[in-house]
Amino acid sequence: MESVLHYIHRNRDRYIAELKEFLTIPSISNNAENRADMERCAAFLKDQLESIGMQKAAVFPTEGHPVVYGEWLGAPGSPTVLFYGHYDVQPVDPLELWISGPFEPTIRDGELYARGAVDDKGQVWMNLKAAEAYLKAQGTLPVNLKLLIEGEEEVGSAHLDTFIQSHQDLLRADVALISDTPLFDRGIPSICYGLRGLAYFQLDLKGSSQDLHSGSFGGTVINPNFALAHLISSLKDSEGRILIPGFYDDVAPMSDREKEELSRLPFDQERFRREVGAPELFGEKGYGTLETVWSRPTLEVNGLCGGFTGEGAKTVIPATAMAKISMRLVPNQDPDRIARLFEQHLKAVTPSSVDLTLTRMHGGNPWLASIDHPAIRAASRAFEKGFGAKPVFVREGGSIPVVTTLAETLGLSTVLMGVGLPDENAHAPNERLDLGNYQTGIVSIAHFFDQFSRS
Amino acid sequence: MESVLHYIHRNRDRYIAELKEFLTIPSISNNAENRADMERCAAFLKDQLESIGMQKAAVFPTEGHPVVYGEWLGAPGSPTVLFYGHYDVQPVDPLELWISGPFEPTIRDGELYARGAVDDKGQVWMNLKAAEAYLKAQGTLPVNLKLLIEGEEEVGSAHLDTFIQSHQDLLRADVALISDTPLFDRGIPSICYGLRGLAYFQLDLKGSSQDLHSGSFGGTVINPNFALAHLISSLKDSEGRILIPGFYDDVAPMSDREKEELSRLPFDQERFRREVGAPELFGEKGYGTLETVWSRPTLEVNGLCGGFTGEGAKTVIPATAMAKISMRLVPNQDPDRIARLFEQHLKAVTPSSVDLTLTRMHGGNPWLASIDHPAIRAASRAFEKGFGAKPVFVREGGSIPVVTTLAETLGLSTVLMGVGLPDENAHAPNERLDLGNYQTGIVSIAHFFDQFSRS
Repeated sequence: MESVLHYIHRNRDRYIAELKEFLTIPSISNNAENRADMERCAAFLKDQLESIGMQKAAVFPTEGHPVVYGEWLGAPGSPTVLFYGHYDVQPVDPLELWISGPFEPTIRDGELYARGAVDDKGQVWMNLKAAEAYLKAQGTLPVNLKLLIEGEEEVGSAHLDTFIQSHQDLLRADVALISDTPLFDRGIPSICYGLRGLAYFQLDLKGSSQDLHSGSFGGTVINPNFALAHLISSLKDSEGRILIPGFYDDVAPMSDREKEELSRLPFDQERFRREVGAPELFGEKGYGTLETVWSRPTLEVNGLCGGFTGEGAKTVIPATAMAKISMRLVPNQDPDRIARLFEQHLKAVTPSSVDLTLTRMHGGNPWLASIDHPAIRAASRAFEKGFGAKPVFVREGGSIPVVTTLAETLGLSTVLMGVGLPDENAHAPNERLDLGNYQTGIVSIAHFFDQFSRS
Repeated sequence: MESVLHYIHRNRDRYIAELKEFLTIPSISNNAENRADMERCAAFLKDQLESIGMQKAAVFPTEGHPVVYGEWLGAPGSPTVLFYGHYDVQPVDPLELWISGPFEPTIRDGELYARGAVDDKGQVWMNLKAAEAYLKAQGTLPVNLKLLIEGEEEVGSAHLDTFIQSHQDLLRADVALISDTPLFDRGIPSICYGLRGLAYFQLDLKGSSQDLHSGSFGGTVINPNFALAHLISSLKDSEGRILIPGFYDDVAPMSDREKEELSRLPFDQERFRREVGAPELFGEKGYGTLETVWSRPTLEVNGLCGGFTGEGAKTVIPATAMAKISMRLVPNQDPDRIARLFEQHLKAVTPSSVDLTLTRMHGGNPWLASIDHPAIRAASRAFEKGFGAKPVFVREGGSIPVVTTLAETLGLSTVLMGVGLPDENAHAPNERLDLGNYQTGIVSIAHFFDQFSRS
């Protein structure tokens, strides 16, 4: 272990320089125009897997963006870890809000700014570098390691389930490892044991066959913008309570033990508010902020568009209006059932003077693990060694649908060891990664390989 | 009169070719990037005024786009007509819906397609060509003629009021003439005696200081898209009734005589619906479609925008959301009072977890004229001679704020002699002008000069 840690610290600058190179590739999975960049990013990763000492590395084409796979199976008799990560990133708009270009990685005050720095390229790199340290310093790893790195996480992992289902032998392992969750706070290592699920939809309304002059027609035709506002208002009241009939039926409340642990966490509500930059926080009555994010479902309008939105004034009644609407789901809500309830509700409230098209986009089940699993205990010890502090057990409000797929298809428990910070702007302009956490993360992952091999 | 009509018919092709040239200039007053085109368009018009025989023609700079003025005062003792029109046009988006380019005038089936064909460049040209016919065929006009053609009608005529106030001597006349209103239907000449007013606003909401990940923050912060939907829903119910307290206080109902005349018009509701291309019409209970457009105020969301609106899915809670909201007002509503009521209502219903900015954009008073005015009687006889059919008296749902300004500043009554058709897509893609109406319009305007000189 000594030589591994020594290697990690000696190569610190190179590990950062390499990550910067990885981050220059604009691997936005959601943009058709970045398709070549996605291919280039996958090839770059494959070369990297070979260079760190994987015995096998390959790019698997899918019907979408390719999957990158690598393995080192030189420890027969030892357990096998399947690492999962993603090399694709979120879109970057609004571009004008970035201090430095999203694909021009820049270090300011010990933080590395770039799209993908924390979600998830930086944390993928952290795992590769932990493996490299073992393989270069000791010529071996204490566990067998499989690496599965996809390119469609930010667009719902559309082809990952199929890939996993058709490569079950290749991916067989004892536990899954993912680094895509945040620390509870700076210096507090955190193991996530619960995730919210997701159901994402696009809603299109059509009123007339073309845009109309609001003088000549105003008052006699439905305005899709208005109909959309009415539909949206029918989904959630002004206090945040979702109004879709049956929506809350299957929501499991937090256990008393969870609530007690939650109450001991050093959560600073005012700091959270300042980080968000809102005049005041908001939320369902009767639930604290953390409890809301961890255990309450939510429904958000992620995008809204209709009519004239340029500079100045245009007196138009638009023909169409669009909304992107997504729900974060909690145990034991089922995305399919929620989608049905949503559709039924929309059909019931949409007026006949407008045409509704509902498109279901990606989704994923919510997830809740036992914190007594041996791999979670090993992760806990590894984090304590890496950070010098006992980890806390947290849930996370986001979705990592692959966690459910790994459980359902391969029977795997997942350990979530992420080192991002909550204010590092994943999915927003000026995404960044604390380079101290990056380094400590590499050390912690190396310890996890060690600890898990002993469990 | 014979020689004038002969001249008009002999020059038919040239009159169309010249209009096409006028329509190639992209005079979009709302786009900063078209500023040079606006200058070019004004200069083009001035040259035209000189070439048709105006004694004086000038481009007057304003703080916005220039005003073009021309006059022929060679009939002392005869009445003076002040023609008003505008050379600016609406924006052209969505560009992909145009069959031919908006500034590539194209004739299909006897209709001239281009932005501005009917609103209002085509109808400005019609008036110029009627004057030309008199001046070239007879060397004189039966009335004195002043021409006032502005470049900011589509952006609220921001600098026209100032121009009129500071040029009262220049613009002194006996009646104003405008061609910017539609025929009630093909073959039915129509004189408009009522217009709706306008109050236009932009509403900006800010929730957080930056876009947020809907997983990490969903449920704890207000979503400006949602707050916007709630605000909009509070403005009008699902049956079209506006909910702003006091909004309807000053609305004057149509007189019994008006209702009776309206009921005799050959209005085809089903055809109206088909033209609009909506699954069904919509509107306040208790009012027919025409009565609604003519005499009921309306509130429309002209534009709506917030968050991610591109292809695919992005799980973001946006920092901001925006709506463009306008109201069509009827006699005796006052735009200033309505703006106050609107602002009071918004302040009362906007939650404290979001910041609201309300920007008042342009507006105009509603207008109602007497159909017994001598100039309206002259217009009626002129239309009957031009179209071979008695005109009907109609109101129009749109706004022509200058009509109020001309009344209030110069004490002028206005005659509205437009020849557009209701389905010619003013303000929408594929705007067009029927070339038969264009020709008949030139003849009718020539008759109006003749008839008004005798009144």
